[in-house]
Amino acid sequence: MAGGKQVKNKQIIFKDYVGGFPKESDMVLKTGTMKLEVPQGVKGVVVKNLYLSCDPYMRARMSKLVGSYIESFTPGSPVVGNGVAKVLYSGDPNFKEGDLVWGMTGWEEYSLITATEFLFKIQHTDVPLSYYTGLLGMPGMTAYAGFYVICSPKKGESVFVSAASGAVGQLVGQFAKLLGCYVVGSAGTKEKVDLLKNKFGFDEAFNYKEEKDLDAALKRYFPDGIDIYFENVGGEMLDAVLVNMRLRGRIAVCGLISQYNLEKHEGVHNLFCLITKCVRMEGFLVSDYYHLYPKFLEMVLPDIKEGKISYVEDVAEGLESAPAALVGLFSGRNVGKQLVAVAN
Amino acid sequence: MAGGKQVKNKQIIFKDYVGGFPKESDMVLKTGTMKLEVPQGVKGVVVKNLYLSCDPYMRARMSKLVGSYIESFTPGSPVVGNGVAKVLYSGDPNFKEGDLVWGMTGWEEYSLITATEFLFKIQHTDVPLSYYTGLLGMPGMTAYAGFYVICSPKKGESVFVSAASGAVGQLVGQFAKLLGCYVVGSAGTKEKVDLLKNKFGFDEAFNYKEEKDLDAALKRYFPDGIDIYFENVGGEMLDAVLVNMRLRGRIAVCGLISQYNLEKHEGVHNLFCLITKCVRMEGFLVSDYYHLYPKFLEMVLPDIKEGKISYVEDVAEGLESAPAALVGLFSGRNVGKQLVAVAN
Repeated sequence: MAGGKQVKNKQIIFKDYVGGFPKESDMVLKTGTMKLEVPQGVKGVVVKNLYLSCDPYMRARMSKLVGSYIESFTPGSPVVGNGVAKVLYSGDPNFKEGDLVWGMTGWEEYSLITATEFLFKIQHTDVPLSYYTGLLGMPGMTAYAGFYVICSPKKGESVFVSAASGAVGQLVGQFAKLLGCYVVGSAGTKEKVDLLKNKFGFDEAFNYKEEKDLDAALKRYFPDGIDIYFENVGGEMLDAVLVNMRLRGRIAVCGLISQYNLEKHEGVHNLFCLITKCVRMEGFLVSDYYHLYPKFLEMVLPDIKEGKISYVEDVAEGLESAPAALVGLFSGRNVGKQLVAVAN
Repeated sequence: MAGGKQVKNKQIIFKDYVGGFPKESDMVLKTGTMKLEVPQGVKGVVVKNLYLSCDPYMRARMSKLVGSYIESFTPGSPVVGNGVAKVLYSGDPNFKEGDLVWGMTGWEEYSLITATEFLFKIQHTDVPLSYYTGLLGMPGMTAYAGFYVICSPKKGESVFVSAASGAVGQLVGQFAKLLGCYVVGSAGTKEKVDLLKNKFGFDEAFNYKEEKDLDAALKRYFPDGIDIYFENVGGEMLDAVLVNMRLRGRIAVCGLISQYNLEKHEGVHNLFCLITKCVRMEGFLVSDYYHLYPKFLEMVLPDIKEGKISYVEDVAEGLESAPAALVGLFSGRNVGKQLVAVAN
């Protein structure tokens, strides 16, 4: 047993399974109490949560899932997600008091984490800690594995990224530019399009909501076709991309955010292009690639410190703001990586 | 100049571009004359066609194509396709009179072939010559490259093949069985299902037309899911397969025959499964793999001679029967590889 102090613990409780678009009222703020201790015989850590991450895949966990790769949230319990936290008490020899960690935690002020195998110790603190919810955390690894491993990119290739100003997209675009690719991104507001061009160095960017004909938009930016598509949205955009792929193109299927709140996903009609253009389309889960995390940090930390990689975060202040921040992802309200600052 | 004799030449003329299901009347038999010679200065061969191949991809060539990987047939000219032929006169140093070849030829009794780079000399004649339209020709190479290269199969994996009694499907299933996989095929008649089980040694087979719920059918045969799907049909079947794929499964997209005659291809709704199961879905064209042809023959010829591989052909007799044979592919009338015997 370690610790013992009793504290108030604000929590964001997941109320019940959701159909369609999630609403703020699907979650509720509750204040309970928590004994800051790791119970006897339990391998775990008690942490104080500093930053919580809002990620699109969390929508799936709000549905009642059966036999899925992830589990549903538990109605009546706090929302669960990636976050950055500080270890207060440890009952696990791999962690000690004061350690900073990132990984799966609860949407609350304090958490007892027993699945410590999914926690990463933060070794580099000369970058903003909040980055470990994004650039240096799960979304960063997603961009890295999805782009470098799944897309097998080559210098000079033409890369298209959808939802390009999001946590993953902004990185994929910058990785592609650093490699010497031609990179175009799509996003849903003028502000985001400006960010892509002026902040992240995309060669071109467009607002998909202002394009009546996505096929024509893609032909404008890719007259010779697309070698690599980093897919974050699905639906109509995927159909338009398929007809614009080049021979032996690759599509990394990272997310389909346009579809997550639909009863039935939209149909994709142009899969025949996979044959005629010999395209490889591959889904992936970042959890398969965490063994590459040290290699990823080795590549990305110098780039961050030298200012070669920019990163934009949309920080909601306070645990109270977490439900609105999460729900906002699905209307594209966030600009850049959405996170919640819980404590300093 | 080689040759010079004038002969009558029956031809199957492609009348005009087709929308929807092709009909026999989209082609017409005509008898012309042909001078059996290779014109001065032309690198080519004059051949007598022996067998012609009917393949699903030919449907695409009946449409008006723009910027496609293949060219439309020319209205008013003979249908073009793979065939087995005998060289009568050669104006190409790589071929000589009497050579047997397979490759692109015309739907007619005699052809002048100038694109000799797409002709393969037949070296092994101790197997039926007609096999070079199928098992030992383009469909065989398609099965070989699609299964061994695209699907990266491993012993013990679960393999599903649609249109499994067709030219390509029957081979994929047998290759998978020889490797030690569990193999299930779907087809559209009881006769074909029986063939799959009794002739080709599939572990199980079912008639998709008798299944109200394809998802349930797949769950019956694959309670633990599908590792490899060899896709020949598309549409509903693909949607049902997607939800039944196993983690890190592979889908070789070879053809989508259920879709070829539709104005707009059906929508596929379950692509999200590519992410949740980390599935790779890859289209391919056999023309990228012809450099493997010698290796393929080395593997497959002994298996044929030892009776380890069976092959079922559906032979239409006479050039006159070619239009019906081709059109029949799209209603599934053929049992096994559809070909046309033009001459002995």
